[in-house]
Amino acid sequence: MNDALAGISTEPAAEAFAHRYREQPRPLPRPWNEVLRTQLDHRSVRSYLASPISEETLELLVAAAQSAPTSSNLQAWSVVAVRDVARKAELARLAGGQAHIVQAPLVLVWIADLSRITRIAAAQGVELEGADFTESFLLATIDAALAAQNAVVAAESLGLGTVYIGALRNHPLEVAALLELPERAFAVFGLVVGHPDPARPADIKPRLPQAAVLHHEVYDAEAQVEAVRRHDAHSLAFRAEQGLDATPWSAQAIQRLRTVASLMGRHVLRQAVAKLGFPLK
Amino acid sequence: MNDALAGISTEPAAEAFAHRYREQPRPLPRPWNEVLRTQLDHRSVRSYLASPISEETLELLVAAAQSAPTSSNLQAWSVVAVRDVARKAELARLAGGQAHIVQAPLVLVWIADLSRITRIAAAQGVELEGADFTESFLLATIDAALAAQNAVVAAESLGLGTVYIGALRNHPLEVAALLELPERAFAVFGLVVGHPDPARPADIKPRLPQAAVLHHEVYDAEAQVEAVRRHDAHSLAFRAEQGLDATPWSAQAIQRLRTVASLMGRHVLRQAVAKLGFPLK
Repeated sequence: MNDALAGISTEPAAEAFAHRYREQPRPLPRPWNEVLRTQLDHRSVRSYLASPISEETLELLVAAAQSAPTSSNLQAWSVVAVRDVARKAELARLAGGQAHIVQAPLVLVWIADLSRITRIAAAQGVELEGADFTESFLLATIDAALAAQNAVVAAESLGLGTVYIGALRNHPLEVAALLELPERAFAVFGLVVGHPDPARPADIKPRLPQAAVLHHEVYDAEAQVEAVRRHDAHSLAFRAEQGLDATPWSAQAIQRLRTVASLMGRHVLRQAVAKLGFPLK
Repeated sequence: MNDALAGISTEPAAEAFAHRYREQPRPLPRPWNEVLRTQLDHRSVRSYLASPISEETLELLVAAAQSAPTSSNLQAWSVVAVRDVARKAELARLAGGQAHIVQAPLVLVWIADLSRITRIAAAQGVELEGADFTESFLLATIDAALAAQNAVVAAESLGLGTVYIGALRNHPLEVAALLELPERAFAVFGLVVGHPDPARPADIKPRLPQAAVLHHEVYDAEAQVEAVRRHDAHSLAFRAEQGLDATPWSAQAIQRLRTVASLMGRHVLRQAVAKLGFPLK
C-alpha cells in the first residue's frame, strides 16, 4: 500500500515512526512497548460494524478518562453516552450528516462541566465568581480533552475504533438542548466508539516532521519551513493512495481557516457559549 | 497505606478500579491490558531524580503526541522542550515557585499554535480571517491538550513521571516572551517530565464515582448528589493518609473558583491571549 516504506528497519519503533512520518527516523536505540504501539498505530475510524459496546467496556473507558490529570483536581468535565438511534441521528444531523455517528453503537459527548461544582456551591449558598472567566472555561475544556484522549487510547487498546466529532461545535445550543445540559455545561466534541469494519480499514495519516512541532528552549519558526514542504509531499502521496484529490496539507489547512465561512458556523461560538453560561470574561 | 482497600478482588481491573475510586466496582468480567494498567495507575509526580531524559525518549514522547487526533488535521500545536536550568527556574518562578519544575530534567511547554499556518498562508499572501475567532483558539488549545495527554501516557509507560503545570497561565505574556513565541501562539500548560524519586512515591488520587460524571442519553444532575457525598468522604480518607488537612473535595473545588482572587491572576487571561494574537471574536 505504501511503497515508499519498503525496506525500512523492522525495529518496531523505527517502523512505527516511518509509518507515522513517512520518513526514516534517526538510527537510535528506542524503547518500545504496547502503549507506544497502541498510540503510534492510531488512525481515525469512519466505518463501523453494528456490534454493541458493553457496559463493562464503557466503564473501563470512563475509568481511563477519569484517571487522566485534571486541573486542581476540579474534575470539571462530564461525558454523556449516547446509544439511542434517534438521538445519534440527531447528533449526526447537527454535525453535518456524518453517517458513522449513526452506524457506530456508541457516541460519547465530552462536556466542559462547571455546572456540577456550581450546583454543589449553590447548595451551600455560595456563588462561584471565578466560573465566569475565560480561564475557567478553558480549564474545563482542557480537562474534558485530557479525559477524552485517555478514553481514545483505552478504546484502541481494546481493539475498538474511534473518531472525534468536532462538528458538534457547529450547533452548540442544539447539542446542549438535545443532551439536556444544565447551565455552565458545554459539549466540547463527540467521540464515536465502535468496532471497526474490517472490510474498510483506515490508514495511518502522516504527520508533520518533528522539526515542525518540536522546539528546543525557544520557538524556532525557521526550522519549520523545510519540514512543512516535506509534509506537503508526504500528504500528497497519502492522498494519492486514498484516491483523494491532489491538495497538499498546507493548502487544506489554509482553506480550513481562510474565511468566516470556513468555520462552518462556528464563528458564533463565543455568543453560543455565553448563552450556555460561559460569558468568557 | 489504605486499609479500606484490604480484601478487594485481586482481579486486575477490579483492583485498579478500587484504588482509583476507593469503592468496590460492580463484579463484571473486564478485559485488561498494559495500556489500561498504565492509565489507571496514573499519579502526578512532584519529586524527581536529576537523571536526564534522552533525545530518543523525547522523540518517542513527541511521536506519541503527534499520533493523537487533531481537528481537521490542522496540527495546530507545538511543544517547546526546556532543559536549560535558568529557563526552568524562570518557568518555576512564573508558575508560583514549584520546585519540581527545576528539579526535573525536562519541561515540555504545550503551545496552541496558529502561528505556523499563519506564516504558511502569509508566504502565499493569504490572511487567515478564521484564526481570530474563539473557535479557532479553542481548536488549537484542544489539539495541544490531546497531544500532551498522549505524551503523558507514553512517558508513564516508560516508567517516567509527569505533572502538568497549569500555573503557566498565571503569566501568559511572560511565558510567551521567555519561549520567544511568535504571534498566534499561546502556552496552554507545561508538563514536567522526569524519573520519579523512589524515596518520595506519589499515590493514586481518588476520583468522583462514575455516577457523578457518566450520563446516559441525557445529563443527569440528580445522580451526582450522592456520588459527590461519597467522594468527599473518600477524599478526606486520602488526605488523612497524606497528612493533609481535613478539607473535603467539594470545599476545595468551591474555594478554587469562589472569587476573582482564587484564579491566581488568570482573570485577565482573555486580555492576555488577545495580546498574543487571539482576539477571541
